[in-house]
This record gives sequence, C-alpha cells and structure tokens, in this order.
Amino acid sequence: MNARRQRIVIVGAGFGGLEAARNLGHEAVDITVIDRSNHHVFQPLLYQVAGAALDISQIAWPIRHLLSRWSQVAVLMAEACGIDSVAKAVLLTDGSRIPYDTLIIATGATHAYFGHDEWARYAPGLKTLGDALSIRQHLLTVFEQAEREADAARRQVLQTIVVVGGGATGVELACTIAELAHDDMPDDFRRVDTRKARIVVVEAASRLLAGFPESLAAYVRQAMEHLGITVLLEHAVTECRAEGVVCNDHLIEAGAIFWAAGVRASPAAEWLHASADKAGRVKVRHDLSVPEHPEIFVIGDTALLEQQDGKPVPGLAAAAKQQGRYVARLIKARLRAQPPPSEFRYRNYGNLATVGKHNAVVDFGRLRLHGWFAWMIWAIVHIYFLIGARNRVMVALNWLWLYVKGERAARIILSRKS
Amino acid sequence: MNARRQRIVIVGAGFGGLEAARNLGHEAVDITVIDRSNHHVFQPLLYQVAGAALDISQIAWPIRHLLSRWSQVAVLMAEACGIDSVAKAVLLTDGSRIPYDTLIIATGATHAYFGHDEWARYAPGLKTLGDALSIRQHLLTVFEQAEREADAARRQVLQTIVVVGGGATGVELACTIAELAHDDMPDDFRRVDTRKARIVVVEAASRLLAGFPESLAAYVRQAMEHLGITVLLEHAVTECRAEGVVCNDHLIEAGAIFWAAGVRASPAAEWLHASADKAGRVKVRHDLSVPEHPEIFVIGDTALLEQQDGKPVPGLAAAAKQQGRYVARLIKARLRAQPPPSEFRYRNYGNLATVGKHNAVVDFGRLRLHGWFAWMIWAIVHIYFLIGARNRVMVALNWLWLYVKGERAARIILSRKS
Repeated sequence: MNARRQRIVIVGAGFGGLEAARNLGHEAVDITVIDRSNHHVFQPLLYQVAGAALDISQIAWPIRHLLSRWSQVAVLMAEACGIDSVAKAVLLTDGSRIPYDTLIIATGATHAYFGHDEWARYAPGLKTLGDALSIRQHLLTVFEQAEREADAARRQVLQTIVVVGGGATGVELACTIAELAHDDMPDDFRRVDTRKARIVVVEAASRLLAGFPESLAAYVRQAMEHLGITVLLEHAVTECRAEGVVCNDHLIEAGAIFWAAGVRASPAAEWLHASADKAGRVKVRHDLSVPEHPEIFVIGDTALLEQQDGKPVPGLAAAAKQQGRYVARLIKARLRAQPPPSEFRYRNYGNLATVGKHNAVVDFGRLRLHGWFAWMIWAIVHIYFLIGARNRVMVALNWLWLYVKGERAARIILSRKS
Repeated sequence: MNARRQRIVIVGAGFGGLEAARNLGHEAVDITVIDRSNHHVFQPLLYQVAGAALDISQIAWPIRHLLSRWSQVAVLMAEACGIDSVAKAVLLTDGSRIPYDTLIIATGATHAYFGHDEWARYAPGLKTLGDALSIRQHLLTVFEQAEREADAARRQVLQTIVVVGGGATGVELACTIAELAHDDMPDDFRRVDTRKARIVVVEAASRLLAGFPESLAAYVRQAMEHLGITVLLEHAVTECRAEGVVCNDHLIEAGAIFWAAGVRASPAAEWLHASADKAGRVKVRHDLSVPEHPEIFVIGDTALLEQQDGKPVPGLAAAAKQQGRYVARLIKARLRAQPPPSEFRYRNYGNLATVGKHNAVVDFGRLRLHGWFAWMIWAIVHIYFLIGARNRVMVALNWLWLYVKGERAARIILSRKS
C-alpha cells in the first residue's frame, strides 16, 4: 500500500490553530499551517505591550519554531484570501493554491467600528502586535507633546485619553495607562503633571465586563475610579474624530482614543458562503464542522456555536484551545476509522481580568475573588500559559521591576527617525 | 544677587550628550536636553537587535527617565534643524527656538552611501533602533520567501545576504546572521536549507577591522570563514540594486543587502558654518569648543579632533563619553571662575569586537586576546556598560538562552497586518 498521505491545512496560528497543529503533530499526515504573520501572539497580555510594560518578544514566538519538532508540519507565512471548497484548496493572495483533504479555519477576529471604518485612524484597536506598538507610540507621544505645549488647557486635553469599550481589554488597557501616567511617569516630566492625566472609559451598556458576574463588575468599576479613571456607562459613541469622541451628544476632547469595543470575525463565512451571525461568525455544527462540509472545521473567534444554555461559546483563548484540541481528536478518530468523539462542549475553567498592578477579579463560577490574592492567581495563570521558559522568566522579571520600582520595560517611541 | 541661571542646551542624548547632562546635573544651571527620539540607545549591541537576538527595550531607555532625578534637567523630544549662534538659540523643526548660554552639540553620525543615497532603499544601514528593526524584518522575510519559493536556484539567491563593510559593525552583523541561519533556524524550515545560506562580507580595503591590529584582523577573517562567511577584501561596491551588489565589475545576486560602510556626521558643521572634514565632522579646538565660539562645544561622532599621533579621536562610545565628561568639567570650572582643565585627551582603554557566539577579539594595547576568554571579557564589559539592573539581567538571560539553546528572543516580523 502506498496511499497518499492526508493533507491537513490549518489557516491561522492563534490559540486554536496552534493547538490543533500540535495535537495532530504525531499523526502520519501532511500538515500545513498558514498564517499571515510569522509569529503566534499571547493576546491576553497584548494590553501590556501597548502600555509599555512588556516588550513584543516576550509575548510572541515564531510559529515555525513552535512547530519545528514535528517534521511533517510545514509553516507558510502567507495570507489566505479564499477557499475553493469544490476543488478543496485554500487560495493565497499571491495567487497560489494550497490543496487540502481536511481544512481547519482558525482565522480569529479583528476589531470593528460598527460600520464606521473611518474611525480607525482616530481610534486604533488592539488585536495584533502591530496594533499594540501603534497604541504604545500614540500613548507615549501625547505626553511628549504635552511637555512641549505652553498652553495649560491644551496640555490637559493632550493628556486626556479615552478608551472606548468596557470589556476586559478596555478595562485592562485603561488601568495600565492610568498607572503609567499617575504612578510611573510623573518624575520624568517638568512642565506637564502626568498625575493629572485624565483616563476615560466609555461603555454603551449599563455595566462593565459583560462576561463577569455583576458583583465583580461593580467592584471593578469602584477599583477603576480609585485609580483615578472616569467610567462613563450608558455612553454610546456616535463619532470618533481628531479632536475627540462624541457620545451622548457631548464631545470629550482627547489627545488619544483607543478602541476596545466591537469585534468582527475574519471573513471565513464569505469564503465558504456559509451562514453567519451579525459579527460574521460561521454557524458551525456541534462537531465544529461546517454544514455540508464535514471536511471543513471552523474554530475560535471565527466560529459561532450555541451552548446548551443558548449562549454562544465565548471568544476566549481557552475556548479556542479546547476547540483546536477537539478537532484534532475528531480528525485522529477519522484517520483510524474510529467513532468520532461526542459533540464539543466548552468547559469554563474560570475568567480573569486585572484592574491595575496589584488587583484583579477572578470568576471560578461559585468562587469569586478580587484584590491582591486574585491578582496573584491571575499572574501565576498567565505566566503558566506563556510558551517557553525564557518568556516566563522574562515576563516575571519585568513584572517584578514594574511592581517594585515602577520601571516600565518598553517606553520606546519608534519612528522612522528613531 | 538674583542673577538668571545659566542655560545649558545639549543637543543629542547619545553617549556623549547623556554623559555631559549627567555630569552637569548637580550644578545650579538650567539644562535642556533635546533629542529627536525619546530614547537613548546602546549602539554597540544594535547589531544583536537586527539579528533578532535582543529586543529593543533591552538596549534602549527613555531619556527623560535616565535624567529624571535631576530636577533642573528638562528633556525635549524635538528635532533641531539649525543654530542661531548670534542670538544664541537652537532652532527646532516646529519653528520654535531654544535659547542657550552654553551649547553642547552631540548629534552623532549616520550612515553614508558615498554620495549614492539612492542605494539606501536596497541596502539599509544600522544606526538607530528603527534601522535595526528594518534589518531584522528584511532578514527574517527573505527566509520566509525562500521557504515559499519552488525554484531551488532562486531559493539560494534569496538566502544570499551581503553585508557591505568590514568594520566592527559589518563583522558583528555578518556573524550573527551566519549563526542565525546556520545554527539557530535550520530545524524550523522544511523546504529551504538555511544551513546553506550564503553570507558575504564585502570590504574595499585589503583587511578587516581598520581600528584593530593586523594580527587580530587576520584572526577574525579566519574565524569568519570558519563560520561559513565569505569575506571579499579589496572589493569596492560600485552599485547596490534590487538584484544585488555590484563590485569589481561583478554582480553578487542577493536576497538582502545591509550597509555597514560609510559614515557621515550630523549636519552641525553647516548649522555653525564651521570648517569640517569630508565626513562632515566639525574641526574643534583642543578643549572641544568651536573656533571663535568658546560657548559652543561639539563632541562625539560629530567632532573632529586630531590626537598627538595625528590620528583623529575614533568614533566610539568610549570617546564620546570621555568628551561629554570633559566638557562638563570645563563648564563647571567656568561656572566657578576656576582655571579650565588641560586640553582633552582620549584615553584608549581597549577595543573589542565579537566574532559570533563564543568568540571575540580584544585589543588592550600590549595585551591582545581572541577566542572564548576574549568573548567572556566582551560580554562582561557590555553588560557592565548597559544602564540599569533590569537590562543587565535581561540581556544576560537572553544570551544564556541563545548560547545554550540557540533560541533567539526576537524573531518577530512586524508588518502592518501582524
């Protein structure tokens, strides 16, 4: 027997795609992982790169290095732009086609501006390393501008920073910015008093952190106000422009606006002509395959799967990883002609978010924690989930310096001339 | 008595400018440090950022943080574009003027293309953090392109990398690239064999490392060839273009060209209408002041000062720091109406360069070393001169991982989409 080996193509090397590749690595199949960037990013800490607390290399790894030990896994740095589900091939932007027998789509999501893409230039979002560096640059630059500004009122506008969105990303980003300005930077400036920097979080709903229990969300709001952050609930943004943010018919003048509100799935639904929800997520079956295409799976933030309680599986790293592992198990069963595993079920092991340097909220279902102990749990969990001993040591050391000395690792503005 | 405090303006926060500011920090004067970027860079390790061995934050620090403890020192992130030596003011690109009583110009140098600025797009140089990131990006991308290339000959061209210039920067950059390709990356690629990557150093002179004794330069050449690097001496580059480098009437086809040859001083001589040499360096007097302007000093790579043996003070970090310290001492003497220190003399404490991961050359005058022990000296000296305990620990740890496990910290390609 000399049968051709199964070709499995995985598009996207985020949490879901990487987990699928690693779990299929030992099979006698040919696996191709396609990603448009050369690195996997640990997204839960992206806000710390934006806030200059961590450097990019500490939360990113070359994908091909992460998969190098499995010789039948090939990594291609290329951008997918379509799928030919009849001829079974992934189309790349350079015109080439990558044939598959089984396809796993794990292309994630990006930020969305409720149909106002023109806001992107005024209010950058936070999904990639490049985004994090842009935000960092913008953030550090407003304080440099304020230091050069002679007019006191204008200085105060410059150091007003609005974060749109009160989910985990918005909360964590706002807190790290507040601490940067209020605690870590004041001694470095002469003219501008960064203690007076105004950090504003604007949220359309009547509460923060939709994924968390109400009691923890209320605690987080208090903790943020304690950090000097202005939290505006029931404030829907109707415009972002150069001068600031308009919400509830009122302009908040700002030096910088950061976007942590809407999310839109990658265009996989269009590629597949599959049915999707408003956010573009592909409605998958309970084994994560696409209706009428048992050989195509969609996982992670691009997939929409209702759980038994009617709520969709949340767009979290943990869910994507579980789905990657599930699909790998299912494919392995097929390869061995064994019965498939029972339908996918998301297991929620808990939900965490930081509220500044020494504070976090943790929701383990029945057990809910907040404060310093919750922060310790958060820190240990995040260091544990980082890949590689080097990054664990580096991140832990960076936090040590940040928390003990207020020294941020990466307060570097990169421009063409720097 | 209520006399106005002396205003000292320092343009440039490299090794020279920073040293001057720190040595004047305790005086009862107003000091303004102007730099177009927000960070000071430890240039001797810039090649390791380019080679993905170190991340940017490990060799860069916010200037204002480095000077924060001296409350009379203000830092301005702004670009100087001229000097009005009659009205005594530095002109900034935004149109504003910064008045001075005493001026220290420490604006450094940039790479020069022998009058062929059009080569810059094909052969980026290495002077700033931004340059280092561009080179890293370009370098990592050629291997990604080679991995996607079906044609074997074209693959080999893509992984041919030419470094123009056989000074310390060219040698160190070529060695780190050779080790990246030959040692650290092979297992990560499937189609391209990065062990066969061709690294070529092109030097117009008949030897490498002009600043070192001939015997060490010959050793370095051998060591480089041992690392698989092709060293072409007496090869003057007559053209850089998209396909490669032309030298000695011969085209070397290459995937990437990096420039480590000519250097040109910042335009301070033009600003001052002062006499300068071919490389644009201002001819300063033996107290580092500008002829006819005892209140203006030029230090570091922008200054030209002949030593007693007729050779100019070299463009090295150590020389710039000594000059910064000397000028600070001279200014302090003037403030106290004391006699000035005797003329500036450069003290050469030694010269070091690495030749790969475990090898270096050290020239302490009578004592000349090469090999592993020289590398240990190099590593200790460089960690010692880094600023801040955090960076020392981080760099040391990064080297540990690199040397023990071949893991490079920062193999990250940043693009707009990443």
